[in-house]
Amino acid sequence: MQNFKAILDEIYADAKRAKEKGTVASYIPELAHVDENNFGIHLRTLDGFEYGVGNFDTIFSIQSISKVLALSKAMALIGESVWERVDVEPSGSPFNQLALLEIENGIPRNPLINSGAIVISDILLTHLKNPKEDFLNYVRELASDPNIYYNLEVARSEKNTGFKNYAAANLLKSFNNLVNPVDDVLDFYFHQCSIEMTCNQISDAFFFLTNKGNCLTNTAHLTGAQAKRIIAIMLTCGFYDEAGEFAFEVGLPGKSGVGGGIVALLPNHFVITTWSPGLNKKGNSLLGMQALEQFTTKTKLSIF
Amino acid sequence: MQNFKAILDEIYADAKRAKEKGTVASYIPELAHVDENNFGIHLRTLDGFEYGVGNFDTIFSIQSISKVLALSKAMALIGESVWERVDVEPSGSPFNQLALLEIENGIPRNPLINSGAIVISDILLTHLKNPKEDFLNYVRELASDPNIYYNLEVARSEKNTGFKNYAAANLLKSFNNLVNPVDDVLDFYFHQCSIEMTCNQISDAFFFLTNKGNCLTNTAHLTGAQAKRIIAIMLTCGFYDEAGEFAFEVGLPGKSGVGGGIVALLPNHFVITTWSPGLNKKGNSLLGMQALEQFTTKTKLSIF
Amino acid sequence: MQNFKAILDEIYADAKRAKEKGTVASYIPELAHVDENNFGIHLRTLDGFEYGVGNFDTIFSIQSISKVLALSKAMALIGESVWERVDVEPSGSPFNQLALLEIENGIPRNPLINSGAIVISDILLTHLKNPKEDFLNYVRELASDPNIYYNLEVARSEKNTGFKNYAAANLLKSFNNLVNPVDDVLDFYFHQCSIEMTCNQISDAFFFLTNKGNCLTNTAHLTGAQAKRIIAIMLTCGFYDEAGEFAFEVGLPGKSGVGGGIVALLPNHFVITTWSPGLNKKGNSLLGMQALEQFTTKTKLSIF
Amino acid sequence: MQNFKAILDEIYADAKRAKEKGTVASYIPELAHVDENNFGIHLRTLDGFEYGVGNFDTIFSIQSISKVLALSKAMALIGESVWERVDVEPSGSPFNQLALLEIENGIPRNPLINSGAIVISDILLTHLKNPKEDFLNYVRELASDPNIYYNLEVARSEKNTGFKNYAAANLLKSFNNLVNPVDDVLDFYFHQCSIEMTCNQISDAFFFLTNKGNCLTNTAHLTGAQAKRIIAIMLTCGFYDEAGEFAFEVGLPGKSGVGGGIVALLPNHFVITTWSPGLNKKGNSLLGMQALEQFTTKTKLSIF
Repeated sequence: MQNFKAILDEIYADAKRAKEKGTVASYIPELAHVDENNFGIHLRTLDGFEYGVGNFDTIFSIQSISKVLALSKAMALIGESVWERVDVEPSGSPFNQLALLEIENGIPRNPLINSGAIVISDILLTHLKNPKEDFLNYVRELASDPNIYYNLEVARSEKNTGFKNYAAANLLKSFNNLVNPVDDVLDFYFHQCSIEMTCNQISDAFFFLTNKGNCLTNTAHLTGAQAKRIIAIMLTCGFYDEAGEFAFEVGLPGKSGVGGGIVALLPNHFVITTWSPGLNKKGNSLLGMQALEQFTTKTKLSIF
Repeated sequence: MQNFKAILDEIYADAKRAKEKGTVASYIPELAHVDENNFGIHLRTLDGFEYGVGNFDTIFSIQSISKVLALSKAMALIGESVWERVDVEPSGSPFNQLALLEIENGIPRNPLINSGAIVISDILLTHLKNPKEDFLNYVRELASDPNIYYNLEVARSEKNTGFKNYAAANLLKSFNNLVNPVDDVLDFYFHQCSIEMTCNQISDAFFFLTNKGNCLTNTAHLTGAQAKRIIAIMLTCGFYDEAGEFAFEVGLPGKSGVGGGIVALLPNHFVITTWSPGLNKKGNSLLGMQALEQFTTKTKLSIF
Repeated sequence: MQNFKAILDEIYADAKRAKEKGTVASYIPELAHVDENNFGIHLRTLDGFEYGVGNFDTIFSIQSISKVLALSKAMALIGESVWERVDVEPSGSPFNQLALLEIENGIPRNPLINSGAIVISDILLTHLKNPKEDFLNYVRELASDPNIYYNLEVARSEKNTGFKNYAAANLLKSFNNLVNPVDDVLDFYFHQCSIEMTCNQISDAFFFLTNKGNCLTNTAHLTGAQAKRIIAIMLTCGFYDEAGEFAFEVGLPGKSGVGGGIVALLPNHFVITTWSPGLNKKGNSLLGMQALEQFTTKTKLSIF
Repeated sequence: MQNFKAILDEIYADAKRAKEKGTVASYIPELAHVDENNFGIHLRTLDGFEYGVGNFDTIFSIQSISKVLALSKAMALIGESVWERVDVEPSGSPFNQLALLEIENGIPRNPLINSGAIVISDILLTHLKNPKEDFLNYVRELASDPNIYYNLEVARSEKNTGFKNYAAANLLKSFNNLVNPVDDVLDFYFHQCSIEMTCNQISDAFFFLTNKGNCLTNTAHLTGAQAKRIIAIMLTCGFYDEAGEFAFEVGLPGKSGVGGGIVALLPNHFVITTWSPGLNKKGNSLLGMQALEQFTTKTKLSIF
């Protein structure tokens, strides 16, 4: 067995020495004020090993990482019907997402870009009794941790600045690909993005995807095939315009968030979560990407 | 002098005999329920002649025809500054307007497409004290007729179905090309579109454009250069994707609305307004287009 | 009657004083080496007046001005069938013409953009016995002047650098909108663009468009309706991305070429041609645009 | 150890029973005339096992499968410099590739779409002494088999119908992303696509990618990192608009060709090649996709 602890310590040490830390997201004050020196990493393996270094136990805004959990809940609720309303292919360039949506008649390319996640939110809104409460409880259950919350300030700020999301949602609505009112869907969507978790909690919550759909307490949340479907989407669509680069550099399915978090996993082996708020030019955590690249290089554990 | 009366009577007789009447707009109930057999035409010349036939005195929803009057008011208020926020070029294909807006960084191609008119609404909202009241009074003044009103049912229906307009407005907002809140701008915009006027009232209201900016009561509302600017925009951008066809078939600057109205004019000569609710495939009044084509052919009065 | 001579002399004097002259096209050496101080203007009216100032009698590369004459010949040959293969609407932004062509399944937006003119060349190639010879003779006939020639150096240079045109032609071919081999069509197209004429010759050649299809020697080359169709297209599509601006500033249908020439006309009144090699940012002759704007302002002869 | 033989036999039996076989490509006669009943599959593992069933020893047109080998040769020749001229990200929708190329200034999204492969051909043309001969020898060397040839008829047919490729190449040239003449680059490109190989030969030729760059005779053709780079690109970009679907259904990096071949591999484990000429709607071999899906399901050998 590998000395994961030593490897993670080494990665942490390198990260602390890094000069270039990227740029913290600044479109809402709650993200802009996060200290760029934060760096956390947490690993959980299928065979029970667990270890965290640095700020692995500090909460941060998970942002788009929530898209994977929302998709998972939607699949649990309505199964394959999800794919009638959203595709599973990479989206290409990110700068003209509305154009793409317009050309493709309101069917988002995949559930991990904003327009796709908005459709997923619409599905959840229809099928959950108390959408916000139920979804939060779902995340808590996955992570086996009741101490996970929405950050209402963040949700409110997202709402006040999220004009592109309003544009996308209204375009979806014009193509009849939203059932619920735009405001309700986006309110729920912004709440999902505002969830705050630690690296540790994220590793725990994503454990079920490496474990054929069964969470830490061994409850089945998805079938093995459904978990595999989500992992395949993370692999091809999880990193915006950097999916190809990430597949090569890191070689793991994963998902990043603008709050600086990245979760990645090797099916049947482990989940690993990093947090460093500074982003590279493509909007993914700079040091997080480097840490994951180091991890797969040193452990030789990747899909390749 | 030509026998305009005889020519208009002839055109009216032809229109009543027409088998193909196009398709009445059906996206909101208020438009869908309009009787397709309505046909009105009204002419007013600069030298004082005036004549109407058919339903020229029946009110209908002026819809996009309002965009010209909104533009005119905006130019009266802030002059050339309008062009810092909207361009004056034709927009090409209509089916990907959001894509175009996205590529061109939130600057609409011209003030007569929806996104451009939304920016104009934002300008008016900023510079008018009581926007809805003031704008309605402006139209009444231009037409020398106090009996012009918003149709609040229409405004409400537009609001409930206007998702593409919400998408456009939010996209504009994301590019910082809207100052006021999206909802306020669109509420005002939908009210403008809901104005109801007769052919006669429209001819009267647009008279100032053929008359170097001076309305029927000889009040100056624009400079001659400003009126010319608006006429040039009507010529190149007034008919969505049929601008080229209209320039050829009719040879007049004009503007159509989805309610079936068309206003056209020859500078220094006349204004003519037609109304027939059935639309052709490109969204312009079918019989209205034909009537105007007949008019310029018979009178030989066109820009050519 | 106006003192056209005095007005043209004045315009010429102003042009010679101008500090800003724009930038001479440099993508082929033959254009790059033209002296930017050239300025010519020539007017011909329907009632027989004619006057030229400056370099109005110097030949220059007519470039895209040839597109109007090619269209005219195609209409003379096959009439309305032209419109089965090319549309008559403005093209919107010029920077993504291939994208537009791709989306619109190989039907160019109008015959005055490159892809449209390539389709027109294909039509001519099919219907002319000796395409290059016949087309040149057509232009000579229109201008009543046998001394008009292709510049073979220019045609060759265009061919060696015209990769975007090759891309467009091949795309048209892939959509089955070219009958003849790509190389043959482009060879003919580049020859057309390479024609050299003086302002005087251009005014003479375009005379038939202001004269209901009848050229200087009163030979009918088009019907009145066909001439009107071409004029309508010049009005809405003649100036790339500056059609709206030109319609306002100048108020005449016209066509510009990258060689610095502009021809404009008022139906039933006059043709006017300017030449100044420096271009503005949108690719139209800077001083030529200004000269035409002055002309319509001073003479009050425009479509408005 | 698994009973691969039994599994492949089973897959073969299922394929022979299949009613739906997809549609054979028909844009050139040489492909159109291939018998749709052909079905071959061949497996080679890193530890020396090898087995083929059906028409695994019949040659077919490898088409786009050649793009991977061309990329590999380019990386062997100039290393990371390749990425200055082509990106490594998925391309999204395939129907507007020229639009994408235009918007992204002539940098193809990845080397496995046509425009990207054309750039790679240009690189090879510059760096190989006798490009066609050298490249063929490279493929022969990789496969340890001198009996591999271009099909000159196919190359000629591709040339005569490949207008979209000519359009792409000329567009690349207009952006200065082709060094050599368009015709030379495409001639070489069409030759590459015309190579004919058997499933067995393809498995052998691609062996080096699963084996850290070392071919069957243990010659190093790429570094381990370079092989990994190519595998990552196959994973995210190998199946046009079906990359996401393939990642999920099959879970292997791979590449398909319009001739009906698919090669897929699991790093450090095996290469598998299928051939069935009928294509699904997205242009990938219908039965080949199904066979690979069965293979990874039955063997549980995938990247997940």
